Amino acid sequence: MNPETQVYLNGKIVPSSEAHIAIYDASVVLGATLTDMERTFGHQLFRLDEHLDRFFRSCKYARIDPPISKGQTRKIVEELVHHNAQFIDSTQELGCIQFISPGEFKVYAGSAGNADDMEPTFCIHTFPLPFSFWKHYYLEGAHVVTPSIRQVPPQCVDPKIKCRSRMHWWLADQETHLVDPKAVSLCLDLNGNITETSGSNFLIVKDEAIWTPSSKNILPGVSSNFVRDLSEELGVDFIEKDFQVYDVINSDEALLTSTPYCIAPVTKINGIPINSGKIGPVFEKLIGLWSQKVGVDIKNQLLNSSF
Amino acid sequence: MNPETQVYLNGKIVPSSEAHIAIYDASVVLGATLTDMERTFGHQLFRLDEHLDRFFRSCKYARIDPPISKGQTRKIVEELVHHNAQFIDSTQELGCIQFISPGEFKVYAGSAGNADDMEPTFCIHTFPLPFSFWKHYYLEGAHVVTPSIRQVPPQCVDPKIKCRSRMHWWLADQETHLVDPKAVSLCLDLNGNITETSGSNFLIVKDEAIWTPSSKNILPGVSSNFVRDLSEELGVDFIEKDFQVYDVINSDEALLTSTPYCIAPVTKINGIPINSGKIGPVFEKLIGLWSQKVGVDIKNQLLNSSF
Amino acid sequence: MNPETQVYLNGKIVPSSEAHIAIYDASVVLGATLTDMERTFGHQLFRLDEHLDRFFRSCKYARIDPPISKGQTRKIVEELVHHNAQFIDSTQELGCIQFISPGEFKVYAGSAGNADDMEPTFCIHTFPLPFSFWKHYYLEGAHVVTPSIRQVPPQCVDPKIKCRSRMHWWLADQETHLVDPKAVSLCLDLNGNITETSGSNFLIVKDEAIWTPSSKNILPGVSSNFVRDLSEELGVDFIEKDFQVYDVINSDEALLTSTPYCIAPVTKINGIPINSGKIGPVFEKLIGLWSQKVGVDIKNQLLNSSF
Amino acid sequence: MNPETQVYLNGKIVPSSEAHIAIYDASVVLGATLTDMERTFGHQLFRLDEHLDRFFRSCKYARIDPPISKGQTRKIVEELVHHNAQFIDSTQELGCIQFISPGEFKVYAGSAGNADDMEPTFCIHTFPLPFSFWKHYYLEGAHVVTPSIRQVPPQCVDPKIKCRSRMHWWLADQETHLVDPKAVSLCLDLNGNITETSGSNFLIVKDEAIWTPSSKNILPGVSSNFVRDLSEELGVDFIEKDFQVYDVINSDEALLTSTPYCIAPVTKINGIPINSGKIGPVFEKLIGLWSQKVGVDIKNQLLNSSF
Amino acid sequence: MNPETQVYLNGKIVPSSEAHIAIYDASVVLGATLTDMERTFGHQLFRLDEHLDRFFRSCKYARIDPPISKGQTRKIVEELVHHNAQFIDSTQELGCIQFISPGEFKVYAGSAGNADDMEPTFCIHTFPLPFSFWKHYYLEGAHVVTPSIRQVPPQCVDPKIKCRSRMHWWLADQETHLVDPKAVSLCLDLNGNITETSGSNFLIVKDEAIWTPSSKNILPGVSSNFVRDLSEELGVDFIEKDFQVYDVINSDEALLTSTPYCIAPVTKINGIPINSGKIGPVFEKLIGLWSQKVGVDIKNQLLNSSF
Amino acid sequence: MNPETQVYLNGKIVPSSEAHIAIYDASVVLGATLTDMERTFGHQLFRLDEHLDRFFRSCKYARIDPPISKGQTRKIVEELVHHNAQFIDSTQELGCIQFISPGEFKVYAGSAGNADDMEPTFCIHTFPLPFSFWKHYYLEGAHVVTPSIRQVPPQCVDPKIKCRSRMHWWLADQETHLVDPKAVSLCLDLNGNITETSGSNFLIVKDEAIWTPSSKNILPGVSSNFVRDLSEELGVDFIEKDFQVYDVINSDEALLTSTPYCIAPVTKINGIPINSGKIGPVFEKLIGLWSQKVGVDIKNQLLNSSF
Repeated sequence: MNPETQVYLNGKIVPSSEAHIAIYDASVVLGATLTDMERTFGHQLFRLDEHLDRFFRSCKYARIDPPISKGQTRKIVEELVHHNAQFIDSTQELGCIQFISPGEFKVYAGSAGNADDMEPTFCIHTFPLPFSFWKHYYLEGAHVVTPSIRQVPPQCVDPKIKCRSRMHWWLADQETHLVDPKAVSLCLDLNGNITETSGSNFLIVKDEAIWTPSSKNILPGVSSNFVRDLSEELGVDFIEKDFQVYDVINSDEALLTSTPYCIAPVTKINGIPINSGKIGPVFEKLIGLWSQKVGVDIKNQLLNSSF
Repeated sequence: MNPETQVYLNGKIVPSSEAHIAIYDASVVLGATLTDMERTFGHQLFRLDEHLDRFFRSCKYARIDPPISKGQTRKIVEELVHHNAQFIDSTQELGCIQFISPGEFKVYAGSAGNADDMEPTFCIHTFPLPFSFWKHYYLEGAHVVTPSIRQVPPQCVDPKIKCRSRMHWWLADQETHLVDPKAVSLCLDLNGNITETSGSNFLIVKDEAIWTPSSKNILPGVSSNFVRDLSEELGVDFIEKDFQVYDVINSDEALLTSTPYCIAPVTKINGIPINSGKIGPVFEKLIGLWSQKVGVDIKNQLLNSSF
Repeated sequence: MNPETQVYLNGKIVPSSEAHIAIYDASVVLGATLTDMERTFGHQLFRLDEHLDRFFRSCKYARIDPPISKGQTRKIVEELVHHNAQFIDSTQELGCIQFISPGEFKVYAGSAGNADDMEPTFCIHTFPLPFSFWKHYYLEGAHVVTPSIRQVPPQCVDPKIKCRSRMHWWLADQETHLVDPKAVSLCLDLNGNITETSGSNFLIVKDEAIWTPSSKNILPGVSSNFVRDLSEELGVDFIEKDFQVYDVINSDEALLTSTPYCIAPVTKINGIPINSGKIGPVFEKLIGLWSQKVGVDIKNQLLNSSF
Repeated sequence: MNPETQVYLNGKIVPSSEAHIAIYDASVVLGATLTDMERTFGHQLFRLDEHLDRFFRSCKYARIDPPISKGQTRKIVEELVHHNAQFIDSTQELGCIQFISPGEFKVYAGSAGNADDMEPTFCIHTFPLPFSFWKHYYLEGAHVVTPSIRQVPPQCVDPKIKCRSRMHWWLADQETHLVDPKAVSLCLDLNGNITETSGSNFLIVKDEAIWTPSSKNILPGVSSNFVRDLSEELGVDFIEKDFQVYDVINSDEALLTSTPYCIAPVTKINGIPINSGKIGPVFEKLIGLWSQKVGVDIKNQLLNSSF
Repeated sequence: MNPETQVYLNGKIVPSSEAHIAIYDASVVLGATLTDMERTFGHQLFRLDEHLDRFFRSCKYARIDPPISKGQTRKIVEELVHHNAQFIDSTQELGCIQFISPGEFKVYAGSAGNADDMEPTFCIHTFPLPFSFWKHYYLEGAHVVTPSIRQVPPQCVDPKIKCRSRMHWWLADQETHLVDPKAVSLCLDLNGNITETSGSNFLIVKDEAIWTPSSKNILPGVSSNFVRDLSEELGVDFIEKDFQVYDVINSDEALLTSTPYCIAPVTKINGIPINSGKIGPVFEKLIGLWSQKVGVDIKNQLLNSSF
Repeated sequence: MNPETQVYLNGKIVPSSEAHIAIYDASVVLGATLTDMERTFGHQLFRLDEHLDRFFRSCKYARIDPPISKGQTRKIVEELVHHNAQFIDSTQELGCIQFISPGEFKVYAGSAGNADDMEPTFCIHTFPLPFSFWKHYYLEGAHVVTPSIRQVPPQCVDPKIKCRSRMHWWLADQETHLVDPKAVSLCLDLNGNITETSGSNFLIVKDEAIWTPSSKNILPGVSSNFVRDLSEELGVDFIEKDFQVYDVINSDEALLTSTPYCIAPVTKINGIPINSGKIGPVFEKLIGLWSQKVGVDIKNQLLNSSF
């Protein structure tokens, strides 16, 4: 019997404490890593196929061939989650991450072999979702700030791939924290359009509709996509368009969507309250409907978590 | 007595075989890593201070405070190189890399502590320079290709920091290799200006002068800077300006500069021979002068290396 | 009985002849002024709430807090219009303007107090709409010219706020008048898309639909919005998209919408007739429907005005 | 004997208390105002001709013809300063501002005459320089912040004219004050280059040279130009080039130049100390030399001022 | 009886062998030529009016007045096609091209008359469609490559006019052929959006819809427009939006539309298979429906052609 | 004895009256033509080698291989000029143009051969310079206008090649002629910088120096280059930099340089006089020195020409 959580790494299941990356892996040397992440509700994986599809689309775009198929990946994810869930209690949930890099640059290890002779590094691991990180989102709403740093444009790295060359997000957050240490960076694109935050999609509610930034600038979010489905049920239009800070300031509500906390209200941008600065009714309807769909009271679970 | 090369990792000297990175280190998760690299000539470090200055400038820009001072870093680099040089023979040289990330995201390891409570990950390691990789540069000249992927602009991530969010370079190289598997990507900026390659600065020789792309678009190269010094000795102007593919095609010579191979001739761009497609005299003068300065016949050493 | 029109200025009603601005008011020194304007039909205010909402949105964006509420502003507007309407005859109508600046820079008046200690300057005033200015619009159609000067992009000043830093429009008009002294500047954005004129929104009719430039580049016009409502009644689609000079030249009709003259046909762009260069049927339908809604024959009133 | 300071307004000398602008003047309605400002040292005007030349260049660009010649303007400025200087004591100095707008839009005053029939509004006024505002610059250095708002590009309004459509600066400062209420906005251009602050030019000292942002993005500063002259005397190169935040962070010193306080050290950008965060030697040399040239100890005068 | 095909040139019908252009015609000297092209199915012209409308729109935009009316042009096209069709057999079809330039620059012929005194050069000619050129499109699918060369933006030359200043396409194709000699250039716009190829529109099929690049970047294709009509019949949405290489790689199918071969599947982009790299069902449905509409089995005709 | 001027066309010398281009030549179909032009002074060719070098650089860039060498081209140019000069009198001069296209698209002539099987079309022809066209330049100075149309950026077609895809210049001139029928378009680049006119380089004189727009945006002019040489003799600096309309308006003088008329003063931009609107002294010095160098009084020759 295994007394520890497990990690899938390059074809093997290893104890988490033994899962390491070589210092000369392309993920460390280049940040040339594709990733994706799913979570559980009641210890059941949510929309796993959508996450795997997006992950394999990222890989195809970046020409990094996963050594195992989508079906095999699904199986490993399910098994890892099943195994690792026994280490958390029923009030907790798991996040599960898969990532792939082109592999190790052997030359840095002192080997002068063929540089092209690389094997992808493929890892899958889980972790308990640290709900306490996001409690203030549900209590006061998230705050966003638009820093001077801009989103990387698609002709450099397409934001539709979930990759780990995210220095611009690190830089953006350093600026943002000067304004408010708990705020999240909401980067503008090179033309001044709203894009996304470093960890979530960003939506606004305006004139009975939900607006999403245009697809050229953002990750096609699985949670955002689910909100699209839910808003259809609620009879609310879901519109894709370029919009700017003015639209956010003068919106009815603003929202973050992200795998770990699903959906969160945004109540301030650059220190300015959005509408009255209160959490709004569309957020409440969406999270209610979402909870219903997954059989978990998302807000209560998160707010009551001691983790 | 230590039978193995050593690595500095987070305050400790460890055997290379034990130097690993956690899968939830910011270097893996975000690519938020700063780095630099120096090399030896005759096992003596070359322009170490310039490399350390640039490394600390990168850190300051990205607000990642190295846990040790520049002086301490220098000392460790020198000691590591001294120790690890005993494992190579006298025809070989060492490269030495330092890199830093914001540290481990403990939450992925199952800890729900304060997210801001991170300790930087700081690593210094060496490797024998694999001279065989670059032999064809000295024999036929390097080939460059301008892919459709563009250099990340400075308002996203300033190219003046040596960082490891380099997915765009990975993508660029995938495109470039469709044209010529041995070619190097020479990315244009968003306005169509020449910038740099993924591993080197790019210069052209034109009308008795050397042109470098403007500083907004490139890493301030230590080797390129040394070429500036050498060209002064040769009475050749060194000019910074925006230039385009046309200028490269119609230049007298083109050059790559990079720490491991110092300087290399470029003889083709997008399949078009530069000038006559032959290695040119300015390259020969520069590498001759450089060899003289460091007391090593750089070209011969590289061409005769069996590694 | 008051023998003169009145102005609201900083909490007081004053005779128009006494309404002045200090030479060191921020409106004069910085052009940091927000404004809006409504008009009457038959001396009744039209869509006042929409204008006030837009005005307060502008203020919120620019972080200038009006010293009185939206309700109070409405009341003052109504009273001013009521009072000042007695000085015009029944064939005339009033325009009513409110504007706000951050207030006076006392330092320019010789006071060295706290620079931040500013009281907003808030003014509301009316004027008889000078219908004669626009008669040629209804008789021959307006002419527009695209000058070399470009619309200010939203990452500098969002065109969705109605502000008075309009030097670029002044410059644009100087260029435009070289082509045709009666023409109106239709600025392109930095990418060559049609935006708006200095005093109106710009629409085209094409393939049974009305096209408006995308919201990133224009003021959200109250009149344009009303045309959207009217076009719905007429069964004509109202579409937001980026379009260019080519689309205008090859449209069926083009239109200006603006508070004082409501809607006007555009018959030439850069000297090229739009369609046949004649006033078109969609314009006629829209102004007919508009007249019906407000109980005033807009075209006749304007054409027959002696003012 | 005149008991009050005087203002020149539209051909007349009036007491300051009677100098007002009509609420429908183009300066208020459009922000279509050109301006310039000079100051005294020991009550003597400094480089007046340079300021007047720049003012008349602005007017020519914007096609607003001053109703009086440059020579007449000079005479009025000199007389006003002479007269108004009697109201300050010898430790104080005067700033003198001239501004011009296209004039009053008579239509807003109820006149339906020819819209083109406008007379420019031309005003010249003085004020005692409020030295206390800038004391902290000399004591701790100024702090600058790069907000998300961008400098208006020259194809919209050329920053080489000193105009008063400055809403973008107002917006920039609102963002900047979220980071630090005493900081000054240093706007980037649309490509991420450093430009200027709302009230000064910005220079850096690097590698024994002074760098100024390129002329496309900034006002050609009279003070900055004087620093160019002084740096020539000091044997320091003065270089024009595009540079970025990285260059400022890693400069030796940074400087503001502006008419009222001449030159000031900048010690922080976005919260990061420039060099050691201390006031640097090039600043000290420049202000020393400047003081010598004008026969006033600039730093002492400012620091000792009670105004 | 005429033993040769005919060409319309400047008001005359001439034998093809006598149809020449002066070396100093504006079409040769400036590339200032507008053009359009239609084809036959079963020797009957297809959508001629749409082609002529687009041609006359191009002319209006470029201010080159055709010397004959649209009706006259139609008549000549019909007569030429009727006459020239007798020289091909029934398995072949004709393409018909009309083009216009501002005319001859007489000065190059040694005449110093008025430069403005030019007569447009107007030519209409036909040619048998060389079906063999496109057979591989129907057998393996077309391959597209995105070169570093970008589409000319609409503020330089609007891509909505079909003009013959196409050097950028020539340059793009030279780069593309380095990757694959049979591939077609698919240029990106300056922001990295997909536009069109040098000879066709480009569409993708995604999530049950067909996407076309936005109108700012492409020729409004007559074939693409016909696909819009057909897709409506098939119950497939036809959506205009900016999209990027990622979207093409991860689309279900991609398509070229062009007058000579109507519609073709695209199976690779930058060497990456689109979907499975096989010809897809939407293409098959569209070409089937198209064949039905025109009474010609388009695919068979093309594949069986010996020409 | 030959009674007619001659043209070189595809390997043959033909009488001018027989020099035609096929309607399906790439020069007509694509505008994919490279060209260059030189002129005589006293019937002697001026700087022929510089023109040929530039022509062959253009060809190399566009990958169109001239079928004859540079030496052969020179010989033909010299012979043609020698022969054709006998048809003009001694007060006239010849221009000589060479141009090359990829050749004829045989498919349009009904041949279904290999599309790649093309032979370049290479033509060299002369014409008497029509001096009367430019007389007003020398008498009143040229007038330039900046239209809304922008220069094509180097990532689409590099302006450093002299090519004949010049539709944007045609469009620009149509707009410019609305302002002034004799004015010349001076296109801005996409960022608002001054570039060149459709037929000449554009320079300004400012602060004792001559400024040229930066090389990214313009043809490297042979005449402009000669002015650089002359200005060195005159002790005037020649500086390359981005500049804007403001700089032109406020320059001391502005100049056009072009092969046929060498150098001309510009006295107005957008209707605004440059300096006093008079022809300036630097122009006079330059044309004087130029005349001296070539042994022809350029101004007199041009002004006195009856052609």
